[in-house]
Amino acid sequence: MVNLKNDYNTIGDKLILEELINKCSNKYVGYGTDEETKKLNDLVKKLCNLDVDSYVLSGGTITNVIGLSEMLKYPYEAVIAVDSSHINFHETGAIEATGHKIIYTPKIGGKIDISKIEETYNKFTDNHMVLPKALYISNATELGEVYTLDELKEISKICKKLNLYFFIDGARLPIALVASKYNISDIASLADMFYIGGTKNGLPFGELLIITNNELKEHFNYLIKNRLGMLAKGFIGAIMFNKYLSDNYYLKLAKSANDMADLLRLELKDYIIYPNNTNQVFIKLDNKKIDEIKDKIAFEIWEELHGFKVIRLVSSYNTKKEEILEAIKIIKG
Amino acid sequence: MVNLKNDYNTIGDKLILEELINKCSNKYVGYGTDEETKKLNDLVKKLCNLDVDSYVLSGGTITNVIGLSEMLKYPYEAVIAVDSSHINFHETGAIEATGHKIIYTPKIGGKIDISKIEETYNKFTDNHMVLPKALYISNATELGEVYTLDELKEISKICKKLNLYFFIDGARLPIALVASKYNISDIASLADMFYIGGTKNGLPFGELLIITNNELKEHFNYLIKNRLGMLAKGFIGAIMFNKYLSDNYYLKLAKSANDMADLLRLELKDYIIYPNNTNQVFIKLDNKKIDEIKDKIAFEIWEELHGFKVIRLVSSYNTKKEEILEAIKIIKG
Amino acid sequence: MVNLKNDYNTIGDKLILEELINKCSNKYVGYGTDEETKKLNDLVKKLCNLDVDSYVLSGGTITNVIGLSEMLKYPYEAVIAVDSSHINFHETGAIEATGHKIIYTPKIGGKIDISKIEETYNKFTDNHMVLPKALYISNATELGEVYTLDELKEISKICKKLNLYFFIDGARLPIALVASKYNISDIASLADMFYIGGTKNGLPFGELLIITNNELKEHFNYLIKNRLGMLAKGFIGAIMFNKYLSDNYYLKLAKSANDMADLLRLELKDYIIYPNNTNQVFIKLDNKKIDEIKDKIAFEIWEELHGFKVIRLVSSYNTKKEEILEAIKIIKG
Amino acid sequence: MVNLKNDYNTIGDKLILEELINKCSNKYVGYGTDEETKKLNDLVKKLCNLDVDSYVLSGGTITNVIGLSEMLKYPYEAVIAVDSSHINFHETGAIEATGHKIIYTPKIGGKIDISKIEETYNKFTDNHMVLPKALYISNATELGEVYTLDELKEISKICKKLNLYFFIDGARLPIALVASKYNISDIASLADMFYIGGTKNGLPFGELLIITNNELKEHFNYLIKNRLGMLAKGFIGAIMFNKYLSDNYYLKLAKSANDMADLLRLELKDYIIYPNNTNQVFIKLDNKKIDEIKDKIAFEIWEELHGFKVIRLVSSYNTKKEEILEAIKIIKG
Repeated sequence: MVNLKNDYNTIGDKLILEELINKCSNKYVGYGTDEETKKLNDLVKKLCNLDVDSYVLSGGTITNVIGLSEMLKYPYEAVIAVDSSHINFHETGAIEATGHKIIYTPKIGGKIDISKIEETYNKFTDNHMVLPKALYISNATELGEVYTLDELKEISKICKKLNLYFFIDGARLPIALVASKYNISDIASLADMFYIGGTKNGLPFGELLIITNNELKEHFNYLIKNRLGMLAKGFIGAIMFNKYLSDNYYLKLAKSANDMADLLRLELKDYIIYPNNTNQVFIKLDNKKIDEIKDKIAFEIWEELHGFKVIRLVSSYNTKKEEILEAIKIIKG
Repeated sequence: MVNLKNDYNTIGDKLILEELINKCSNKYVGYGTDEETKKLNDLVKKLCNLDVDSYVLSGGTITNVIGLSEMLKYPYEAVIAVDSSHINFHETGAIEATGHKIIYTPKIGGKIDISKIEETYNKFTDNHMVLPKALYISNATELGEVYTLDELKEISKICKKLNLYFFIDGARLPIALVASKYNISDIASLADMFYIGGTKNGLPFGELLIITNNELKEHFNYLIKNRLGMLAKGFIGAIMFNKYLSDNYYLKLAKSANDMADLLRLELKDYIIYPNNTNQVFIKLDNKKIDEIKDKIAFEIWEELHGFKVIRLVSSYNTKKEEILEAIKIIKG
Repeated sequence: MVNLKNDYNTIGDKLILEELINKCSNKYVGYGTDEETKKLNDLVKKLCNLDVDSYVLSGGTITNVIGLSEMLKYPYEAVIAVDSSHINFHETGAIEATGHKIIYTPKIGGKIDISKIEETYNKFTDNHMVLPKALYISNATELGEVYTLDELKEISKICKKLNLYFFIDGARLPIALVASKYNISDIASLADMFYIGGTKNGLPFGELLIITNNELKEHFNYLIKNRLGMLAKGFIGAIMFNKYLSDNYYLKLAKSANDMADLLRLELKDYIIYPNNTNQVFIKLDNKKIDEIKDKIAFEIWEELHGFKVIRLVSSYNTKKEEILEAIKIIKG
Repeated sequence: MVNLKNDYNTIGDKLILEELINKCSNKYVGYGTDEETKKLNDLVKKLCNLDVDSYVLSGGTITNVIGLSEMLKYPYEAVIAVDSSHINFHETGAIEATGHKIIYTPKIGGKIDISKIEETYNKFTDNHMVLPKALYISNATELGEVYTLDELKEISKICKKLNLYFFIDGARLPIALVASKYNISDIASLADMFYIGGTKNGLPFGELLIITNNELKEHFNYLIKNRLGMLAKGFIGAIMFNKYLSDNYYLKLAKSANDMADLLRLELKDYIIYPNNTNQVFIKLDNKKIDEIKDKIAFEIWEELHGFKVIRLVSSYNTKKEEILEAIKIIKG
């Protein structure tokens, strides 16, 4: 069976795991005060070309919550996002559980409608309503779209104007980078916080949260511990990310995933319903076809329409060309 | 330098890590719905001799918070614990951040004073005070003591009488088991929730939370996701714990740690200040001695007294006999 | 200047205030354990024809939050409401500050679209999303509409089917009662909790929260104190509500307000944009007219359209016929 | 029966209530934007001799919680207080429900032990523990003691040194002022926030929260609304406090209460267990005596000892000399 269900269906890349075995007799200081963590922070500063702080957290939801917890200090402060955003629809109310409202703003596809941000902001006029204080996007989005550099610059400009912190969920940032023309340092120059995902690109776990805005740096380890993100063996995340970020290894993993998706896209272009150029391919199939292929390909059903379904095919760092070709044959056949 | 600083200073046991490499080309379903997770749950039911639910979480603090979040439904409900408990003093207010008060009750050493629990409970008499609803202990305690089976039975009885849920923090439960005469199924028959620690006994991360009380089982995965504990690759924790719990491997790791601590205890018995029979050895040294040894042994300073200090020496699953002998020589020499 | 700005623009009805003066040398027991509170509870049980519990709270927002706090026990539980509901748009994130998400469901005017409730509910399919647990409506709504008894019965039925608690915000329930054909006991037979507003109908402060569902009654005073609603002099609210509910005095006050609105409606029928039959009259005026009248009538601007504005005129228990006639003359003139 | 049970056992002072009746045909703007509120703020600035902000809230608990919510921005920030403080023992976990820990510091009687504050602070050394950010005292204390001006100055100095905000619970501040040699402006020069209690000194409800520190002023009305303290008819509190603070009327009410307590103290000096010079008199009686008097005097039992009980007798603004003399006769007789 060809598994294209998601990009977190394996333990992780072998080189990364071997790195852990190689270092398993070493002894480290706990709670993120070790040499590997220091080395990682130095590496990230170079990548960002900026004096940033950085922290490895275990997954996307906890990274979103801890990052936004830092941005939203008072309980009346809120974050602006699209309704289909991960924080709104797929985190079981984790943001609200920390006491903050998510304000919806219009979207185009899975992207925020940039032209409407200010209008959304302006609806909140007095102390009977929440105070917008942060803006959240994902890059790539839930539908696999990638923001252009111009779009990111425009959002950043609006945020500065409106006194909003700009947060980028980067669970699939490596994929976005290989599918775009910008790099980490471009992102770092625009967002107040963002992260480089690991879990969906070959790591067993781990997202690297990067703080560029000095206002958000103080006492951040207190917040991590309080909001349940502190790992005793923090050095493990650092060791993995040191390997992952070195020699652009994370981009190589992402590129491999993307190349496989490109192949799918090329061959299945007539089926595609939400176009994008990253590792998630959304196609429309009728129910009969779905029934035929469902025991041959593992995929996720994204949406149900009348007589049709949208299914999502996801490639990952270790998806093989033969698997893609097989999937194409099954779908077209 | 001999490292006896803590029991979470290595990436993890090699056999466990090899298990991950061996399975790294497999594909799994995400979010805890995979076969390894199912296998683990079956194994845990057998170990507990009870129809329990079980979940792997990343570390001690998040396990304490999620478990107690289930027990404390309303914001006026509180948990009883000793002031030196991990949830009170070493979790940066994580329990309170979920909206609940910790009520202090007297202690003897690091253990709860069982004879005073009811008196503590009875102070909370009306709706101007919080309502005690859970009781928390650690086994082993922060000072390395182990509760006897009779003590655990007595606490369990009191909790039932007072309508308190009984929660056991088991970050060092494997150590407690090898240092006592009871086993997992004894614990399971007494506590409403408890966990089997992995992080401090050879796993890269992971605590196995076990729910015995049916009242606390419903929708638990919602709570895990909401309280930031859901890992996309949940199967990794399951794979590790399947290895860890098989053939009593976790007890072998713990026994090795404890044997090394026994050796330390035997040779340093005149220095010991807080007696126990687990892997943490607390000794009293004068400041001059501390200065002499501090570049030769890595340890933690536990307390400062006039002219003296209490230091903590911790053995772990991979501490070697030669390291212990070297440490003894340095301290006595 | 004619003041039609809102229904909370006076200290309160004179008879109610005189009741307070008459009893100001009496001594009472504090915190809701007094005789007046007992008398009120008995009266409410009779009005509801049901063994309900009842509590006086200071205002609408705190009543909504405390009531829903009781219904939503776990942080992953959410309340369904329309986006224009008071809890969503006019309470500064107070519900979210207690840790819960508000789920939006479609509306018709200001009312919930009953035919869509189940569809909304069914979108929440697994533990990556919140769990709907309560449904909130206002009666009368923010736009002054009143639910029919059949509508309320239908909503109640759907809630029972979906295992949702049914909460009715009754800040303007007295107005709804005089504008409809049902009474308090009808409401009590359908909602799990509801309240009878006082602040917007002649009391200095006070909403009477009524709990009909036994599951929601236990330890409610703990929740009131914890969520900041406990008044030391709880007997004041009870004294006021005993007067207010006796001899249908609250309905007389509401009827007076409604009669004045009827007069407005009759004379301004060509201007009305959101039709209803309660004390809020929404009319559309061009900007020039607004400028002409704004120093002669105090009103609220509800919405801005191109060249037009919607303004809200509100009558209250003490609005006089001459004021209404004067307002009509100014607007039409 | 002589009622000395507490200082909140009447609806309120007649002059205050008459003020409400006198103004009950006036129309006001809602939510604290009216003329009476403006007038009150001006008056408070004069009393404080400082450019303060001020807000009327309904009771002590909500004032403590909202004030401390402003001081404690991040969930890892905590407030230092004595264990017998109102926020710790008599508010049903309301502070913790907003996500913050209360740190205990030693006390002398009911007062904070000033010499130990720094030692308490210094125990919190790293990010595994909460970060102390505010210090809370009551003046008068729960045991009726009054801090001297030198003590308050010393606490203020320590708070500045340790970067702690200084909060004074003034539920009984009027009593403290008449029992001491300082005034409102002294308090305003030392505390970052404090309040002037109304509920326990003749108002139906109301505490006047005063913010002196500019860092704590921004968006405060958002916090009041979010934390459930916003009253629609905010002008009522302002009207009452304008009367209460004018011509030192609040001090006259407090002095009357204190004079009655002085009389009690003089005659019962041999029975007194916790000495103070305010309106709460704590005396020790044997159980037989308690039984004799309990149907003749309403009082509160404070503590139970072996064969003895501590009872609390409280005078208030409207306690009459005859009542005190009668109580003395009953107790001594």
